Formats: sequence, C-alpha cells, structure tokens
Amino acid sequence: MAPLSPRVVVKVDLKKKPWQQDQPLHNRWHPEIPPVAEVKAGEFFRVEMIDAMGGVIKDNDSASDIKNLVLTTTHHLSGPIRVVDEEGVAAKAGDLLAVEICNLGPLPGDEWGFTGSFDRENGGGFLTDHFPCATKAIWYFEGIYAYSPQIPGVRFPGLTHPGVIGTAPSNELLRIWNDRERQLEESGVESLTLCEIEEGTPEWERIANEAARTIPGRENGGNCDIKNLSRGSKIYLPVFVEGANLSTGDMHFSQGDGEISFCGAIEMSGFLELKCEIIRNGMQEYLTPMGPTPLHVNPIFEIGPVEPRFSEWLVFEGISVDESGKQHYLDATVAYKRAVLNAIDYLFKFGYSKEQVYLLLSCCPCEGRLSGIVDSPNAVATLAIPTAIFDQDIRPKNRKVPVGPRVVRKPDVLKSTYDGKLPITKNPSSSS
Amino acid sequence: MAPLSPRVVVKVDLKKKPWQQDQPLHNRWHPEIPPVAEVKAGEFFRVEMIDAMGGVIKDNDSASDIKNLVLTTTHHLSGPIRVVDEEGVAAKAGDLLAVEICNLGPLPGDEWGFTGSFDRENGGGFLTDHFPCATKAIWYFEGIYAYSPQIPGVRFPGLTHPGVIGTAPSNELLRIWNDRERQLEESGVESLTLCEIEEGTPEWERIANEAARTIPGRENGGNCDIKNLSRGSKIYLPVFVEGANLSTGDMHFSQGDGEISFCGAIEMSGFLELKCEIIRNGMQEYLTPMGPTPLHVNPIFEIGPVEPRFSEWLVFEGISVDESGKQHYLDATVAYKRAVLNAIDYLFKFGYSKEQVYLLLSCCPCEGRLSGIVDSPNAVATLAIPTAIFDQDIRPKNRKVPVGPRVVRKPDVLKSTYDGKLPITKNPSSSS
Amino acid sequence: MAPLSPRVVVKVDLKKKPWQQDQPLHNRWHPEIPPVAEVKAGEFFRVEMIDAMGGVIKDNDSASDIKNLVLTTTHHLSGPIRVVDEEGVAAKAGDLLAVEICNLGPLPGDEWGFTGSFDRENGGGFLTDHFPCATKAIWYFEGIYAYSPQIPGVRFPGLTHPGVIGTAPSNELLRIWNDRERQLEESGVESLTLCEIEEGTPEWERIANEAARTIPGRENGGNCDIKNLSRGSKIYLPVFVEGANLSTGDMHFSQGDGEISFCGAIEMSGFLELKCEIIRNGMQEYLTPMGPTPLHVNPIFEIGPVEPRFSEWLVFEGISVDESGKQHYLDATVAYKRAVLNAIDYLFKFGYSKEQVYLLLSCCPCEGRLSGIVDSPNAVATLAIPTAIFDQDIRPKNRKVPVGPRVVRKPDVLKSTYDGKLPITKNPSSSS
Amino acid sequence: MAPLSPRVVVKVDLKKKPWQQDQPLHNRWHPEIPPVAEVKAGEFFRVEMIDAMGGVIKDNDSASDIKNLVLTTTHHLSGPIRVVDEEGVAAKAGDLLAVEICNLGPLPGDEWGFTGSFDRENGGGFLTDHFPCATKAIWYFEGIYAYSPQIPGVRFPGLTHPGVIGTAPSNELLRIWNDRERQLEESGVESLTLCEIEEGTPEWERIANEAARTIPGRENGGNCDIKNLSRGSKIYLPVFVEGANLSTGDMHFSQGDGEISFCGAIEMSGFLELKCEIIRNGMQEYLTPMGPTPLHVNPIFEIGPVEPRFSEWLVFEGISVDESGKQHYLDATVAYKRAVLNAIDYLFKFGYSKEQVYLLLSCCPCEGRLSGIVDSPNAVATLAIPTAIFDQDIRPKNRKVPVGPRVVRKPDVLKSTYDGKLPITKNPSSSS
Repeated sequence: MAPLSPRVVVKVDLKKKPWQQDQPLHNRWHPEIPPVAEVKAGEFFRVEMIDAMGGVIKDNDSASDIKNLVLTTTHHLSGPIRVVDEEGVAAKAGDLLAVEICNLGPLPGDEWGFTGSFDRENGGGFLTDHFPCATKAIWYFEGIYAYSPQIPGVRFPGLTHPGVIGTAPSNELLRIWNDRERQLEESGVESLTLCEIEEGTPEWERIANEAARTIPGRENGGNCDIKNLSRGSKIYLPVFVEGANLSTGDMHFSQGDGEISFCGAIEMSGFLELKCEIIRNGMQEYLTPMGPTPLHVNPIFEIGPVEPRFSEWLVFEGISVDESGKQHYLDATVAYKRAVLNAIDYLFKFGYSKEQVYLLLSCCPCEGRLSGIVDSPNAVATLAIPTAIFDQDIRPKNRKVPVGPRVVRKPDVLKSTYDGKLPITKNPSSSS
Repeated sequence: MAPLSPRVVVKVDLKKKPWQQDQPLHNRWHPEIPPVAEVKAGEFFRVEMIDAMGGVIKDNDSASDIKNLVLTTTHHLSGPIRVVDEEGVAAKAGDLLAVEICNLGPLPGDEWGFTGSFDRENGGGFLTDHFPCATKAIWYFEGIYAYSPQIPGVRFPGLTHPGVIGTAPSNELLRIWNDRERQLEESGVESLTLCEIEEGTPEWERIANEAARTIPGRENGGNCDIKNLSRGSKIYLPVFVEGANLSTGDMHFSQGDGEISFCGAIEMSGFLELKCEIIRNGMQEYLTPMGPTPLHVNPIFEIGPVEPRFSEWLVFEGISVDESGKQHYLDATVAYKRAVLNAIDYLFKFGYSKEQVYLLLSCCPCEGRLSGIVDSPNAVATLAIPTAIFDQDIRPKNRKVPVGPRVVRKPDVLKSTYDGKLPITKNPSSSS
Repeated sequence: MAPLSPRVVVKVDLKKKPWQQDQPLHNRWHPEIPPVAEVKAGEFFRVEMIDAMGGVIKDNDSASDIKNLVLTTTHHLSGPIRVVDEEGVAAKAGDLLAVEICNLGPLPGDEWGFTGSFDRENGGGFLTDHFPCATKAIWYFEGIYAYSPQIPGVRFPGLTHPGVIGTAPSNELLRIWNDRERQLEESGVESLTLCEIEEGTPEWERIANEAARTIPGRENGGNCDIKNLSRGSKIYLPVFVEGANLSTGDMHFSQGDGEISFCGAIEMSGFLELKCEIIRNGMQEYLTPMGPTPLHVNPIFEIGPVEPRFSEWLVFEGISVDESGKQHYLDATVAYKRAVLNAIDYLFKFGYSKEQVYLLLSCCPCEGRLSGIVDSPNAVATLAIPTAIFDQDIRPKNRKVPVGPRVVRKPDVLKSTYDGKLPITKNPSSSS
Repeated sequence: MAPLSPRVVVKVDLKKKPWQQDQPLHNRWHPEIPPVAEVKAGEFFRVEMIDAMGGVIKDNDSASDIKNLVLTTTHHLSGPIRVVDEEGVAAKAGDLLAVEICNLGPLPGDEWGFTGSFDRENGGGFLTDHFPCATKAIWYFEGIYAYSPQIPGVRFPGLTHPGVIGTAPSNELLRIWNDRERQLEESGVESLTLCEIEEGTPEWERIANEAARTIPGRENGGNCDIKNLSRGSKIYLPVFVEGANLSTGDMHFSQGDGEISFCGAIEMSGFLELKCEIIRNGMQEYLTPMGPTPLHVNPIFEIGPVEPRFSEWLVFEGISVDESGKQHYLDATVAYKRAVLNAIDYLFKFGYSKEQVYLLLSCCPCEGRLSGIVDSPNAVATLAIPTAIFDQDIRPKNRKVPVGPRVVRKPDVLKSTYDGKLPITKNPSSSS
C-alpha cells in the first residue's frame, strides 16, 4: 500500500509575509543557499508557493499596487530542495535532474490571479513605449477556466505552469552570470539583475551580494517562462551543485508566449506535485556546452499530454520593420513586437481597449512563433490566438455594417485601474 | 451540376526553363507586372508552380548546384492573378483578399524535393558561422511522408505550404520598401534585395529595375515562410492595386519554423487549389497601419484543420547569450540561434552528423517559439521537435551504456554532398 | 471582488459510512427525495462524493471485497441539489439544466482508486463468460497519472468524470421506467434494477420502494458512464421536477468506453466543481421525445477542451460473429465484445495476463466505436487503444525473436487478488 | 535516385463500365480470383478504383438511380494484388500483411461524390423504418472540403478512406463464411450476401458461385467501413492464401461512424498510394483465433497522423429503449439508433429536414461510441458531431426567440431527389 497523497515538502502560509514563512523563501540563485527540504528520486512530493509578487498585489480595481511594486524582491521561490537517489546518494554536478510535473494548480482557497503591466519607470514591458502606465486585471478561476471583470467577453482554460524552475548554480557559473550581466550594465543597458540587499547576518549579506537575481532565465532554467511546462511535462535540468538544489515559484495560471506585459501571466500562488529522477552524468551524456566552459548549457523539456485543445487560430504577422517604418536586419524581437501590435490593433476593432488586449495577449494561451529568420532583411514572427476564448466571432468577414458599432462592450472598465494621470486609448466603437 | 475540378489558371511545364514558360513567371514585386490570369470571387481554381530555384537543383548527391546557385533570380512566382467579384468588378486598393487554400501538393510525377544550406559566401543562413559550406539533402515523397537518403532514420508527414504568397504593391508601397531597404544596405548590411536585371525591352528593364526582390516577407505577405499555411488555411491579404494581383510560389513540402538553413524547407514544384473572397474596404475595417502611412500593414491568417498531429515533443531552449558567452539584451534572434544549436548538439549524440540535423531542423515540422521576451536581459526561445519523426527514442534516459555507441547510423552520407574543401564535424559514435 | 473558491454544497466524510453522512446520500431516483442543497444559476459550487461502492473496497491485494460486494446499494449519490435562477425561481419541468463541469478530481488525501470485475454470480460484466471470477486492481494517482501495482508496465493520464449525473424523474417518468424494466424482468432477464429496501420510516420505505435503482442510464442522464464528461464539458439535462433536483456520484478517475468489467472504471471518491444555467423551456426548444410520451428524451453533451492528447492508437476490430463462430445480424454488442477479446488476446502476447488486460481496457482511455452498422450481416466495432500508455512498443513488427520471451513482466501479480478457487489464464512468456 | 512517383498497378477508366475495365474488377471474395498485379514489399504503388456503385449514380437531383440500384453487383474492387517480399518470395498463409496508406483521394477530374439512402425494399439502412425512401445528395469537393447543394449550410474536411480493403480468403475460410451466413439466411434474416451470377465461362461461374459477397466486413478485413483508415494509417491484414491477394475499393471521401444510411459515405472513385510489408508468421505471432479454427481472426489498425482536427463536439446519447418505449437488454445497436434519432430531431430544429440530417450524419466525420455496455439493462451509445461543420452555432442556448424561425434554410431542396411517391417530414421553421 502506497501513501495516497504527495508528501508536502514546502508549505506556505498565505497570511504571512514572504519573509515570515516557516521555510525561508529566496529570490536569488547562489550555491550556498541552504536546502529547506530533501526528496528521494522517485518520490511523489508537493511544493507550495506564494505568488511572485509576495502577496502585495490585491484583488481590487486599482493598479496603484502594480505601479509602486518593488521589483527587486520579486519571485520569492520555494526551495532549494536537495535531491538524492534511491540509495540516498545526492545528485552531483554533471548529472541531469529530470523533474516531472505530475500536477499543479492554485492553492485551495486562493483561486484568483492578476495580470499587470508595469509602469515605464518601473520595469516596463515589451510594449512599454505604447503602454507606459501601470494597469491591472484580476482573474477569477472557475476550475480550469479564468475570467476577468476588467476584460469582459473572454474566458479560457489555463495552461498552468511555474514561471521559474531551476537548479542552483555553482560558484563558477554564478561568476559567469555576474560577469556577463555586469558587462551589459556597464554598456548602459539596465537589466534588472541588480540585487538589493536587506539586512541580515554578515554571512547572509555576503551570499545575497554574490547571488544572481532570478529575473532572467539562464543555464540553470530559472525564469524561463515557458508556458507549456504544465501537467505531465518533464524538465531535464543540469545539476551544478551537490544535491541539485531545485527551486521553483512564480506560478502562472496561464501565460501567452513572451509574457509580453512582463507582469504578464496570470500570477498566483500555487502548488506543484513533482517526481524527480537523477540521470547520472546526464550533462555529459546529453548536453553540449555552447560557450567557453562546460557550464554553458540549457535545460531540455518534454511537453505534457493535457494541454487545452484549440482547433481554430487567428494568426497575426510581424516583420522586422519598426513602428517608425525603419528596416531592421533579421531582428525577431522587432518582428514579434509588430505582430503583437497588429493583434492589439485588430482586437481593438472588436470593442476591447488596447490596454485590455495588451494584458489579454500577455496571459491567454496564444503562441508566438519565429516563422522566418533567414529571408533577409525581414524576420517574420507570428502570433496565433485561439478564437474560442472570445464570446464573439473575431474572424474577418464581409459585413453590412462595420465591426465597431455592432459591439457592445465596456472598454473603459480597465480605466479604473489607472491612476488617472495619463490618457488611455479611446475606442471609437464605444462612443455611440 | 458544378464543374468537378478546379480551373487551372496557371500551368507550368517542368521540362522548360523558368523563362520559357507559356505564362511568364516573375521574381519581383511591382504594380505593373501584368496579370497572367483572372479569377472570380468564389471560383475554385488551380495554380501550378515550379520550384523556387527554377529547376536548377538536381536529384543527386552533389551539393555543387547549391553552392553555385545564383540567388538573384530565385522564386519564379506564378501570377499575378487578377481577382474580380461575382459581378466582375475588380478588387481595389483598400479591400482585403481572403485566399483559402483548399488543397496543395507536389506536381504529379515530380514528387521529390531538396533541402540545402547555402555557402557562407553565397547567401549563408541562420547558422552560417557554424555551417559555412553548401550541403544538400534530397527528399522523396511517399504520399504524406518524406524521407531522405542523406538523412536516414527520419520520416515525417509534410505540413505543405507555399513559402511565398502575396499581392502586388502599389507604387507608393514599393517606394517605401526600396527606401528602407536601401538605407539598410547603405549602412553596410547586405540584404539580398538587390535586383539583377536581365536583358529585355526597355519597359521590362524599367519595371525590373524599380521592382522589389521577393526574398523578404513584407506588407503584402510575400516570402513569409509561415509553415502552417497549409490545407484549409485562410490568408487575408491587403489589396494595394486594382485586381489585387495575387502571386504565389516557393512551394514547401515541409518546413520548420524559421527555415533556418535558408534553402531550408523541402523545396519542390507544386500546385495550389484556391478560392478567393473579396472583403470590400477590409483594410480599413480590419487592419491598422503601423507606421507613417496607411500602407504599413500585415496579412492575417487562419490555420487549417488538417495539420499533422503529434502528441510528444522534445523542447530545446536558448537564451540571449551567444556562443562566445556574451550577454545580449532581450534578443530573440540570439536566443533562437542558441536553442537551435542546442538541438543540433543534442541530436548529434544520437548518431546524426551536425550537418544532417541542421538540414533536418530546417525542414521538419518543428516549432520555434518566443517563450520569454521580457525577463531582462535574457530572451528565451524554444524549439520543439516532434519525437515521432525519428526511428529511435530520442528522449533522455538513464542508460547503462552511453548513447553514442548504441547507434548504428551512416552520418557520413551527407559528406558526399560537400565539395570536399572544408572539414565537417566528425561524429564520435561513428568511429567504432 | 468575487468569492475565490466554489461554495461547498455537499460535503462528505470519508471516515463515515454512507448512511452516516451529514447530508443523506441516495442510490435511487425518485421525485420526492428531498434536496440537500440549493444553488443559483451562475453560481460556482462544489459537490463531494464518496466512491460508488461506499468505501467497502479496500486498498489491498485481495479481491474478496469485490467478490462479496452487495450491489443493491451501490452508487451513493450526492444530492439532490435544487437549482433556481438568478431571481430565485426554481427550474421547472420542461426546462433544460445546463451543467458545466469546471473542475473535478479525487478528494485530497484519498488519491487512489480501484478497478474490479464482478463474480459471474454477483453482477458479472461484459466478458463474464471469459472472466467469471472477481478480480481487483488498485490504482495510485500521481497528479494526472494513474499506475497500478497489479498491472505493471502501464501509466496513463486520467480522463476523470462522474459516472452518474442526472436530474430527478417525475412520477410519470418513474412509472414508465418501472413498467418497462419490470417487463424485461418478467421476460426472464435479470437487470439489477430491483431495489432492496433497508428499514426506515414508512414514508422512506414507500419512496424507496417506488424509486428506480441508479444502475442504468436513462432519460434523466444517470449512470451513463460517458468517459468524456470531464473538465470543461457541459451537460444539458432535461428537467422533470421543480428545482431539477440534480444528483451526481460514481466518480471515475478514468474509464474506457463501455466500462467493460462493470466495476470497470477507476472508482474513487471525488469532487465536482460546477456551474448551472437554466434554459427555460429548453426541452421543447431542443429535445424531441422518442416514444409514446414527451418524457422519452435524452441529455445532450459538449466535450471539454482538456482531454488527454494521444496521437498514436492501435485499433482492434470485431464483427458480429461470436466466439462459437455463430453469425449474428448487425449486432453491435457482439461485435464490440469480439473487438475487446481480440485486444485482450493481443496484449496477452506482450506479457500481461488476460485478467490484467480486461481490467486495463475497462479503465484506460480507450475508445469503442460503432464503425459499421449497416453492412449486413456484420456489424463492425472497433476498440482504439492509445499506445503511449504502455512502457513498451506494442505495435506489430517484424521480429527476429517472438514477442513473448522478450518481455519481462509479472503477469501473476493479479493472481493474489483471486480467491484461489478458479484457475487463471497462464501467460506462456512468463514460464521461462 | 528513386522513382519519383508511385507505380500504378491498377488503372481504371471512368468512361468504361465496370466489366469493361482492362484489369477485371471483382465484387466477391474467393481464393481463385487471379491477381491482376504484383508488388514487392517496400514498393510504393498506386491503385485506382471506380466508385462502389460502378458509375451508375449520376451527378443530378434525382434519387431514382439510388432507388433502382442493383445491390448484387456493388463494390467493384480493384485487385487482387499479389505481394512478394524483397527476394520475390510471396506472402504465405499465416503471415501478416502490413499495408500503409501513404496517400489517397478522388481521381483527378472526378472530384465529386454522393450519399444516398436506399429504399426500404432495396437494401434499406440503419433507420429505414424512419426513412423508407431513396434519397440522394451530391457532394462537390474543394480540395479537402466537401459541400452539397442538397444539404446547404454545412462544409467539412474529408477523412478519406477505402470502405473495403482485404485479403483473399482461403477455401476453408470461405466455407466458414458461407456456412454461417447461410444459417442466418435460413433462419429468415436477409443478409445481402447472396451472389447473383452473370454469365461467363463455366470456371468463372463456379468461382462466382462459391465466392462470398463483399457486403459485410469479415476476418479478412473487407467492407469494414472504418472511417479512420485514412492518410498515414496502417492496416495489418491476415494472409490466408499465397501472395495475400489484396483487394480494395469503395472509396469514401468521408463517412460517419456506422455509415448509417448504408449508401451513406460520400461515395466516389479514387486512388490509394500504398506500401506493403510482410510480417512473416505474423498471424501466429500477433493474432489469436476467436472461434473453432485458427482462421477466426480480425485485422489490426494504426490510425494516421493527419485526421481533421475538431476541438468542439456536440454529443447525443441513446439508451437501449426503442422508439415504442420498449426496454431492450444491453443492446448497443438499439442505443446507437436512438442516439442517431436524437441527433436528427435536434438538428431538424435548426432548419434542416430530417432526411438531410440522416444523410449528413451518414457521411460527416461524426463519431459513434459505445459509452456504456454493462449498466443493466441499458446500453448507452453516443454520437459526437463536430460543431465546426455547420455555418451556424448549433449549441443549446437561452434565446429570446425560438430556434426555428431564426433559421433561413431551404430544407425542401432534398425533395427533388425523391420520386414523389412518399411524403417527407415537413420542417416547421420553413413554413413562415
């Protein structure tokens, strides 16, 4: 007779602040952050997580909490979790850690989430030049479905996943990260990887100081924000330190490819039910370093079998010519930006405000593709949106009357989430 | 009683050279290229196309034809086709042309194709720094499936599509293209958009001189290389000139997202069976210009219902740190490059040469995703490969013996497609 | 701000017996069974259920509990739940009740289930002539996946659903049921619809006596055992009494089409999270009676968007010729029996005992199809099994060695679930 | 260099009658019907087929050709095709013949088909008691799509397949068939297996006399009418005679599970592109006889990867209570009949005539499932219809106005296909 439920190895209390949890949370990568739990290979265990913003964002109509968010402490990961094999021997550097996501979801009693766009002065986002203000939409969950009072007319099943899952870096890998990111900073690019130290023991301050922030995805996985890491998927993480030291957090009820508005998934608290397997010497066996050291590797994934199924998609295209008409050379980032802007402008015609669509494309299960990357000088990117998430037919049609006036929406509903200082786009179809 | 077969409006003769076809082909976009046929909205019609390289590439083991290819004449599009409505009134600038791909495929009797990588000195490709030599793989078709003598051990159903489909630009749009691409050229970037004029009438020389090359995708669609434009898909193209002047070509039996090796799809001759609908004033109704003029728009697509179905995918990740270890800022192109390189290195361990994998990922139905585009400083791109296309299990596993020696492959088979001047990667597992 | 979690309207205590629950359970259909809860249309609510056998079946290796099961009390439904509209007006006869399954699953802490075959003398099953003994397999859940110590070598994601969901019948409909089923009984066919009355108040005994047992699916839905009624599906139930009086139970972690071994799904306790909508006069609007009265109708369903995705299926065929070689006339039941027997015999060759396969096909997500029903005299039925649930390749192949000896299984592991009185089939491949 | 196209081994001429074809066709199974072609294992070859009715049914509005059809000669199979291995050694009794369908479709220039219901006096169909008259709908193909002037408002992609594919029986198997079917006939059931002999040589008359008709599916495959045997599927056929003697025909552009109206698929001429593999001793290795002799086996199938993808289905249920209200015992045929009748009555409310829906459910890609087969006394069958094939939303909804009058259809359009002797159902919504 087997134990019937997964063993809970990390438990959180949503009534407590991030730094008050019984098992300390962390928002940086460092080899010396001590494990808070140990699991055996093959064991079925459960990890709970608070939301990425640490409970600061509230279930209300004001975006001021998003606007004033302190980004330097976000993510609040659960872990590290030390992994040992069936004989009790720890995973070691050079192994692969295969992590199967057997189940996941919101924490019972906390079935809601939020999607926001950061203020341009505070983090911004992919389209911050177009959407410079903080906005916020609340999502309520009805089982597999999410809906938002701020974005009426859409409802969709979640492709739930952890935004962050990774192993601890070795000292050497950490040094590589810090070096390369410092060089970028020194070249004048702000990269959000700076660490803000809270007070603590000298040892804690040393570690926090040396550590890397969790904002970007890196060689250890981390904040890769891959929307398909859902139920049944498998993640093969390189192991850099003894015990692997697996950490995870930043649960997303749903996210679109790119998580474009940055605070862009449906952020929530949640749980993961996991099983680990150690593939001994798997890094050598399966990964090939791409860079000056053996550490320049990336994780591998397998996609799970229960993703939401959509058969009809409307697809928007972008090319690497920017909004000013300037030609860029095979730049997929510019092309994707234009594809997203095209989609926003298109859906605007169906009665949504542009802010609503920006948030929606950040968090609904839309797919961003690198369609063409060689046809000089234009990269071609596409954004595919499942049509079934809307309560109206959004496909182009021959119509007797224009699209706009036929739509009865409340596009201003997101307005209340602004602080009122900046004008938002006005929807022509809502004026009548 | 309806006509039972589509009306053939463009017919090609594969025994003739591109310039010898009864209906002239073209490789540039210009409003004054005269239509070769006219179709009515709602009519079911058929267009035939020669392959993008104009029959120059041969079904043999030598890549010298790829190496010496003259890229300035490629694409050889069929059309333009003038579209009128049921009353005979032509589509006009400002309309949308909805083109449904009812069916498509290789031309009967010519069921084969090729995938190549261009020489670094002659076009190159996404990974030309890693694969500087011309290579070639031949693919034979068995109905829906393709297999290659040069890349043994894989077989997959095609997601067949036209690489190029677009409407004619107006004079103003053409000028915009030429201006912005010239600026890029003047900044020192070679963009393959230069036109090489063959002799002809003065009028023809003028048009050819003014026209834009078909290499990049642009506002009119064109060489967007979207692999999902297959059976049952619908393409909403902006109309810039009277009659729309639809052209198409560059048929692909199959292509991976990005078409990374540039000559990277399975290129073939083929046919399209189409139906057009005119959405009057559809540009104003549905598209929003993104740039200084009303012409800065992009097509919209709907995906068809009969794409090959795969349930298991292995996914490779890349971040925007390049092979030298240098950090780039949210650069999706760099991230995708690293994801592809990771996949190549991985599959190399299963007995394929790196050149084989480079070509395979160019043409098999793999998906390139923009997973994260905001987590500063790293963009995260992913490449998902359907595992069912391989005749071996390519997932990571705990093994008693390393992967390599268990594999019995002929990784050198592509070698014969080189001209011998440059060394290729050696597969360690093939030495025993 | 919305309530974050569904309101729990029926709660069960797994430590209590079925008849000890705070809200009484029921195992019959009758208009006068009093509602235990009331919900509003649009409300998001939760119903908990004990397992169909009322906790009698234990997590152990002995099938004696299955063998001695008292079938006359099974199902133990939760409800009835009275449904009113937003204004508080109850659903009324002639309406349609649209029930959306927003989520469902096992009860936390009770994540396991069982599949059994009944003894021929006690209920039997579809193949009871071939498998006359009681057997039992225990399934443990790892999130979306189930595995069984008694059937090693398979693991699959659940297509979880309630076996029973239905509305209360009116007195007239109840009389129709009792009449037609009594006629069948009188013709000598045993139909399991007899009610066994436990003691109670005279009123309770009257109701119990008049009521219909829950074993068969009927006009009100009921035990329809449709495996696809999972997350996101919608059920349109006819309303026969004021308030609709919705009841549900018999939760299945997974079931194959037909639930062939009768106790054949993975039976478990569980919960449903539901939303109801009342479609006024929906029976007249949408349903057409098929029989002498307006009550001869059946529910309609919509399938949800997150079913497990399988791309590869092995399909077994059966025709309406029985095991003795006798020809039946377009008999789909005989054809499906033969398809199932063919599948059992086939998988037996891969190292499973026939009893193991019988239970497996009862509970894994296999599909039973009525492929041909007109090609006289043979009905053709097919059984499609997803190949990915096995840890070996079960497709036919040219092999150097026969299938059997290559397989290392423990086909006798189910033996211990017998009571030892009857021999089971011996697997030839296990003798070596 | 491989041959680029499949070798055509059976060619038909649609301008000729079935008995005038260069390679004789056949409509019976007999071991002595001589092969018309030989193929090697691994060879890619093409077989052409006339339609099942031999060209008798015309593209017009009259059903008189269906009404007067002579059913005793239908199917007109192409073949037999003798199969040998790479060394030229023929397949032999006891082998398995793996047939891969690499591609298939209508014959070029003949892209149309028909669906009919037979007159009750001439073959009838699953619902002949409800639809006793001959009807006919013509379907035109636009690539992957079919539409019908007689059934406006629907259009769907085909799941094209051969209705008949099988190997020749041995003398012993033929004797078994004839014996068991004769017993059925002698018991008074008409089974359409009687052979009607045309004149010929005495040898031909002997063979025709001994042979079995091709109407039912049997141990050799044959007319199994499995709608999923489409592109990429694989069929494992038992071999009973030297060379296997593969025959095929009865091409269906599309069919619903059950092919309920008997002439119920979209019947057409067509082609198959095939590859065969011989699995030596595969019958013993993989199949288990279910009956008194080793010959009582059935084929196995694998489903292909490019079936049309639908994400939304409306599902109708039936139980084994017939239209008179009589209870049957676990009778899946009765249950499926009721499910189909429920679907017909439902769609009738959306503006289609019942005859139109009967034909539609016969030929569109709907799925018939054996959902419950043990819940005594009711079998539960379901019929799932993809909603995307309709040009209106057919899901139940709360409406201000009843469904009927909102629909603008021409439900009488099928009327012209009757011969006028019998009334057809009148659609209430068409009277206004």
